[in-house]
Amino acid sequence: MSSVDQQLDDLRTEITSELPSDISVSDVKYEGPELVVYTRDPKKFAQKGDLIRQLASKLRKRITVRPDPDVLSKPRDAREEIMAVIPDDAGVTDLDFHADTGEVVIEAEKPGMVIGRHGSTLRDITQKVGWTPEVVRTPPIESSTVSNVRNFLKQERDERRDILEKVGRQIHREEMSDDEYVRITTLGCCREVGRASFILSTPETRILIDCGDKPGAEGEVPYLQVPEALGAGAQNIDAVILTHAHLDHSALIPLLFKYGYDGPIYTTEPTRDLMGLLQLDYLDVAAKEGRAPPYDSEMVREAIKHTIPLEYGDVTDIAPDVKLTLHNAGHILGSAVTHFHIGDGLYNVAFSGDIHYDDTRLFNGAVNDFPRVETLVLESTYGGRNDYQTDQEDSERKLKEVINQTYDRDGKILIPAFAVGRSQEMMLVLEEAMRTGDIPEMPVHLDGMIWEATAIHSTYPEYLRDDLRDRIFHDDENPFLAEQFNHIDGGEEERREVADGGPCIVLSTSGMVEGGPIMSWLRHLGGEADSTLTFVGYQAQGTLGRRIQNGWDEIPVDDRGNGRGNTLTLDMEVETVDGFSGHADRQGLENFVKTMNPRPEKVLCVHGDESSTQDLSSALYHDYNMRTFAPKNLETFRFV
Amino acid sequence: MSSVDQQLDDLRTEITSELPSDISVSDVKYEGPELVVYTRDPKKFAQKGDLIRQLASKLRKRITVRPDPDVLSKPRDAREEIMAVIPDDAGVTDLDFHADTGEVVIEAEKPGMVIGRHGSTLRDITQKVGWTPEVVRTPPIESSTVSNVRNFLKQERDERRDILEKVGRQIHREEMSDDEYVRITTLGCCREVGRASFILSTPETRILIDCGDKPGAEGEVPYLQVPEALGAGAQNIDAVILTHAHLDHSALIPLLFKYGYDGPIYTTEPTRDLMGLLQLDYLDVAAKEGRAPPYDSEMVREAIKHTIPLEYGDVTDIAPDVKLTLHNAGHILGSAVTHFHIGDGLYNVAFSGDIHYDDTRLFNGAVNDFPRVETLVLESTYGGRNDYQTDQEDSERKLKEVINQTYDRDGKILIPAFAVGRSQEMMLVLEEAMRTGDIPEMPVHLDGMIWEATAIHSTYPEYLRDDLRDRIFHDDENPFLAEQFNHIDGGEEERREVADGGPCIVLSTSGMVEGGPIMSWLRHLGGEADSTLTFVGYQAQGTLGRRIQNGWDEIPVDDRGNGRGNTLTLDMEVETVDGFSGHADRQGLENFVKTMNPRPEKVLCVHGDESSTQDLSSALYHDYNMRTFAPKNLETFRFV
Repeated sequence: MSSVDQQLDDLRTEITSELPSDISVSDVKYEGPELVVYTRDPKKFAQKGDLIRQLASKLRKRITVRPDPDVLSKPRDAREEIMAVIPDDAGVTDLDFHADTGEVVIEAEKPGMVIGRHGSTLRDITQKVGWTPEVVRTPPIESSTVSNVRNFLKQERDERRDILEKVGRQIHREEMSDDEYVRITTLGCCREVGRASFILSTPETRILIDCGDKPGAEGEVPYLQVPEALGAGAQNIDAVILTHAHLDHSALIPLLFKYGYDGPIYTTEPTRDLMGLLQLDYLDVAAKEGRAPPYDSEMVREAIKHTIPLEYGDVTDIAPDVKLTLHNAGHILGSAVTHFHIGDGLYNVAFSGDIHYDDTRLFNGAVNDFPRVETLVLESTYGGRNDYQTDQEDSERKLKEVINQTYDRDGKILIPAFAVGRSQEMMLVLEEAMRTGDIPEMPVHLDGMIWEATAIHSTYPEYLRDDLRDRIFHDDENPFLAEQFNHIDGGEEERREVADGGPCIVLSTSGMVEGGPIMSWLRHLGGEADSTLTFVGYQAQGTLGRRIQNGWDEIPVDDRGNGRGNTLTLDMEVETVDGFSGHADRQGLENFVKTMNPRPEKVLCVHGDESSTQDLSSALYHDYNMRTFAPKNLETFRFV
Repeated sequence: MSSVDQQLDDLRTEITSELPSDISVSDVKYEGPELVVYTRDPKKFAQKGDLIRQLASKLRKRITVRPDPDVLSKPRDAREEIMAVIPDDAGVTDLDFHADTGEVVIEAEKPGMVIGRHGSTLRDITQKVGWTPEVVRTPPIESSTVSNVRNFLKQERDERRDILEKVGRQIHREEMSDDEYVRITTLGCCREVGRASFILSTPETRILIDCGDKPGAEGEVPYLQVPEALGAGAQNIDAVILTHAHLDHSALIPLLFKYGYDGPIYTTEPTRDLMGLLQLDYLDVAAKEGRAPPYDSEMVREAIKHTIPLEYGDVTDIAPDVKLTLHNAGHILGSAVTHFHIGDGLYNVAFSGDIHYDDTRLFNGAVNDFPRVETLVLESTYGGRNDYQTDQEDSERKLKEVINQTYDRDGKILIPAFAVGRSQEMMLVLEEAMRTGDIPEMPVHLDGMIWEATAIHSTYPEYLRDDLRDRIFHDDENPFLAEQFNHIDGGEEERREVADGGPCIVLSTSGMVEGGPIMSWLRHLGGEADSTLTFVGYQAQGTLGRRIQNGWDEIPVDDRGNGRGNTLTLDMEVETVDGFSGHADRQGLENFVKTMNPRPEKVLCVHGDESSTQDLSSALYHDYNMRTFAPKNLETFRFV
């Protein structure tokens, strides 16, 4: 008998002895990090509301109870009973029964009403029908990404269960080593921005954190080929953690599966969906630019199939000697500061991922409160000595001025924006400004992936800033549903109509004017001297956006989509409004460390160019007397 | 056609065009780092004395010329002609013809006379017989190690040629990577003494430097199992370099072959022989102590078979992007400071191995003069702030006092000593003291491996201090052949006779009184109050030697070799004479760096306990304003 089977046997005995004698245990299994208890008496289990919590705390495991398939009522009967228990206002849109696990997935517009106070409605459901309910939100704005991911996972359910069982057995394997060490190896994003990737290793376990590309330098990928990364085989990695969906952190994760990785990806649910959206777009862009993509869409599906979503604050066993907790990072939807507790009190490491320290319109500020943390790996994008950003209020005031001036001369405002994050923030600024009368009401057209990304945001309001989340829970106050927002889904014809019409605002990808529908908008509006092209985000060196900021007015355009070049003279006003950023500035980074609880002993400054990481490293050393480093790629630091 | 075959083809064309038209080239092959040119005209080749040197400098390769087997004269005829050419005084003891390669190995008491001025006699031989001569020294003291190694290599000649050809093709393979980096990974001996082991890696090449055990902590071996060591397979190591034969650097090298390593070991010839001697003894001791040795003697033979001996100063290609040069380290016979030139002028790293900075009786001081060196990895055994050693002259004076006092009361002097290094140094001190009359003439008995180690020393006089080398070249002045030295080869009986006799000196292993014949000497002499037990080397914590130094006088002895313990009361005087050491002291280490040419930019202080490495690191930083580190095991530093 393997040690895991022995362990499950012991757990079954222990659980049986803990339960009242009239509640049977028919099987005990690992599914990813959870322990699943199958019972022939699901209704009795549900009657004793606290039983699961007591068991979980006794066994120090996350526990799910499921009915033995033998005792399930028929889905047709169960459906009626379930619908009778759930209030009509919950807006149930789908019920999906899975006889193999006894689960029923309930999709509803108001998941809170399906759950009930402290889960009371869910327990009612189990008591009535025996099935174990799981609740997901019906996207308030239809999202093809969310529905594709959900349908795909439904379709691959059998394989996914096998994956989860395998992962579960891996997590709970016996510890083999009597040695102790904790190490971090840098595979990318050191003294540079892009290709984030790290290995956290102990004698027992090897964890890959992020695996991104480097925008503007397609050949420079994380150093996966070195022995301490995948050199000894991708199967030697125990787990992959994704801090957030941006491609400089996520682009190459599907590649791991091409290299033979077959383990879990831990991240938040919105990151999983956004990751899928952005990775497929990444393949699309590569194809359009004539580059051979490093993997195909099949590998994106593998990544999604292997994702185990975690909620902020869940402490999860991901290896015999490692517990992972994700915390809000304030950077984009689902972004996480990842905290690793290693050994039994041996050591704690936190990776900031990308963070925003202060609250923004979209998100609460990054969490920096932990039970313990000895080493922090900190992003340094704006870590340079002069990287102080304009105050967001001033930025918003300037944006509104630009809009008002343009409106007054009957022009249109064209804003290139990233689909994820920046666009939603602009939408919130514009919705409020129109509501309060700071700018006149006019249509706001959303082009490219912006609408889809917004739909994903509104599917996961729990991940947004408190007050925004509350507004989204009420359809009539959901700012993303405001009537001035229009999804450009009618292609060139619709764009021409908008261009021929009156004053309006257009938000369009790509954010750095490197392809995408923004090119089409430039053709339509580029010649209008009354209109304004308004930059609200960082334009990287070498991009068309940066060149326009620098005064270029001869824009290469492909007029007929036939690949033949043409040139357009840009007559629009060009404005730049600084200060909208998903990243903490230098002050924010210092504040993150200064107020961090507890203050770490060591900080590795990464994810910034050479001078930014070195500036930040030496500032933190001088101000807080910590040991700080600005690592190079391909170094290994040992902490214990 | 493989790129190496293409390269050899091109070289053959180039060589043919460089040679006079009457000298043919019948084949061109790599043998390890050398290019071997086969010709049907070896005699003509030999006539043009400078041709090989010109070719080597033109092609920037080490070149050996050999006769095509088809044109060889018969060994019987050749033997006569060769003996006619070589002066009788050379003392030829063996001629060994190898028809497969056209080589004749000449073993002679005076190799210099076989070589002749600037190699003139060798060239004469080839001109006469066509065979390519190779010369080795007949050990002036018979050494079973040297003759075993030579016979073994003769026996395994075919396989060795295959190995060398494979290694040669590996060295000259095409470079695959367009990336650049130079890294050092620490696998042992950081913040500790023992288990020396490092990996030097570039995108192209991975080199293991040393692989030792940790005396007194048998379980603590280098971290070979991590991915960046052998995790991706032992075959991913390109080359192993051994700095010197001591077991804390060499003990686990045979283990690499058990793990599947099949590549070369680069080291000096005396280190190869001493390594074999010490590794076999290591297996022996393990067996005697009832520990399971990690490998068997077959693996020691594999290590010897894969060794490519280099001379100090030879610049040798060991990979497409790495040139290795060994330099005298002054520590023990054959010990080397290893210098790596990486890329075409990209970077230079030197590993000190163990060094002695000043000249000793046995060796010239360590070389610290290099064409270039950016990073130095420096031993720190005596790097602590108070690690200043007694001046050697004072030590010798004290030793002589102890001897004279003991002699005056008719006692015997028993000196526990390491077989390699310390014993030979003692022999030189004693021989001189008796010759100059500082101490009376008396027999000096050598027990354990001392005699054998001394024989190896006298086989390789080129590796000894200049004036000592010159003395060894003349039998009548060879201090190791002085008549007072007696090899204890008659076992217990001889020891009893010595013990029953008059005043004498006994040098015996083990050096820390942990088993070996010293235990027998303690039984014989331990009760003699007139005799003196004299320590001349470091006694590690936990050893019997250290306990005796600390005043213990109840010695556990195994009286009848039957494993049953017994106790002996030690009545001997106990003296300790400090200051004999193969290691540079703190001053020596600082001087090594201070006078180093050029001064390195970075120094990694290793091979010393935690405080020694940190003391030395901070002293070098403050005194010379270099970047210094005291690494932990399992860290990786990147330099380019």
